[in-house]
Amino acid sequence: MAGSPPAWIINFGNELLIGRIVNTNGAWLARELTLAGFDVRRIIVAPDEEPDAVEVLREAGRRARVVVCTGGLGPTPDDRTAEFLAKATGRRLVLNDEALRMVREKYASMGMELTEDRVKMAYLPEGAKPIPNPVGTAPGIHLVVGDTHYFCLPGVPREMEAMFKEYVRRVLATIAKPPCLFEASVIVEGVPESSLAPVIKRVAKSRPECYVKSHPKGDELRSPVLDVRILCHHDDCGVAERLAREAAEEIARDAEGMGGRVAGLRVERLRD
Amino acid sequence: MAGSPPAWIINFGNELLIGRIVNTNGAWLARELTLAGFDVRRIIVAPDEEPDAVEVLREAGRRARVVVCTGGLGPTPDDRTAEFLAKATGRRLVLNDEALRMVREKYASMGMELTEDRVKMAYLPEGAKPIPNPVGTAPGIHLVVGDTHYFCLPGVPREMEAMFKEYVRRVLATIAKPPCLFEASVIVEGVPESSLAPVIKRVAKSRPECYVKSHPKGDELRSPVLDVRILCHHDDCGVAERLAREAAEEIARDAEGMGGRVAGLRVERLRD
Repeated sequence: MAGSPPAWIINFGNELLIGRIVNTNGAWLARELTLAGFDVRRIIVAPDEEPDAVEVLREAGRRARVVVCTGGLGPTPDDRTAEFLAKATGRRLVLNDEALRMVREKYASMGMELTEDRVKMAYLPEGAKPIPNPVGTAPGIHLVVGDTHYFCLPGVPREMEAMFKEYVRRVLATIAKPPCLFEASVIVEGVPESSLAPVIKRVAKSRPECYVKSHPKGDELRSPVLDVRILCHHDDCGVAERLAREAAEEIARDAEGMGGRVAGLRVERLRD
Repeated sequence: MAGSPPAWIINFGNELLIGRIVNTNGAWLARELTLAGFDVRRIIVAPDEEPDAVEVLREAGRRARVVVCTGGLGPTPDDRTAEFLAKATGRRLVLNDEALRMVREKYASMGMELTEDRVKMAYLPEGAKPIPNPVGTAPGIHLVVGDTHYFCLPGVPREMEAMFKEYVRRVLATIAKPPCLFEASVIVEGVPESSLAPVIKRVAKSRPECYVKSHPKGDELRSPVLDVRILCHHDDCGVAERLAREAAEEIARDAEGMGGRVAGLRVERLRD
């Protein structure tokens, strides 16, 4: 939400850039960061190559208080996120003892040796902390540069989510205060979006704690259906809920006054 | 693919930034642009606000041959993409006669008047062409600045896809030549990703027309399962298919040599 510390999300991966997979990691992280009290300003899919990856990481560090990136931490040669982050922040890439211990223990437990490709996963930017990976083998990276926290996590959703929940959330709680978030949805039938526009404008203007947006679901001209979403945040949950409900009821009333039909109105708290 | 004209995708929308919806428009456009012969370098979700939206559009124009953006074209007050694009490209925002005709005809056909909020949809950057919207009411925007083509489309997937297919594709065909794309997938069980890494490295290095990437699906240590994807492009479809198949077979052979089991190998042409 506006006014909260800015966060950027960067998802590396060629499979995303060619449209073979949808960026569900980006959406998952965006929701988590919003609930944790951050204002997500970018979700960027970028190639895991120079100069693009380095540029994006550097720009994110200049603009955001928290940067979460995914992908490129594994043992294969194109897993180069640690190297890119080192370049973006002007750090050396060094063998991190704690990360090496994590990687060694993982493979030792299965009677496997430390090959060059496995040791690679323990090279982090100087000063970074490895983030334990309870699911897979590659540690994540937590690097603080000035006021900015970088968190780099694997691209495999199961690993990424576990590491976020067990490590990242705890650090985020020291930076931002989670607000109470309530979302209302009003389904309006029979009123074109362009007719409801002045109502949306008025309702939004009078409630700076709320974001109001109409989503056309039907045919604007023949059978208009709008899903109007109102997202309100406040430290006080009672106030957040009231703001969302009153905005929704005001829109519903005005839509009915225009001859529309309200097919649904609900208010729900957003939380994990 | 590398060497092809660069394309950037920008998706505006608060619902994306708070993680309420997954960016399926981004993935759909990424696939379309790849198939049309472009090298997608970014998929960016950004706020539909200043200065962010203007900065992102400007940067995209500096870096890409084609910029496709979605969202913010409708009649509500926060639909401001035309205004942002005008600012990013140093154009004035002007009432476009052709766009006004499109909007007027849409509403006239339903016996509706042109309100201020409806006329707003006909304001485009000076020199832009409106893109017909066969599904909804808001025209899209096609603006050429130097070598760069900007295409702005609605965020509603049904409208966005129809306008892309009927208008954008035709323009793209004048800029890039669609390559033949073949993708192979090899499912390998029982070999950790870190053990297969040297094979991946060798196979990728010997085939510059191919992008090779392993995706861990199981547990790297206890029951590793890898989906190795090989994407090859070539003007000649026969060559593209052969490159993908041979790379897949080489990986399968080496994985079996390491005691792994190949649970699947398929090669398919990517096309619409």
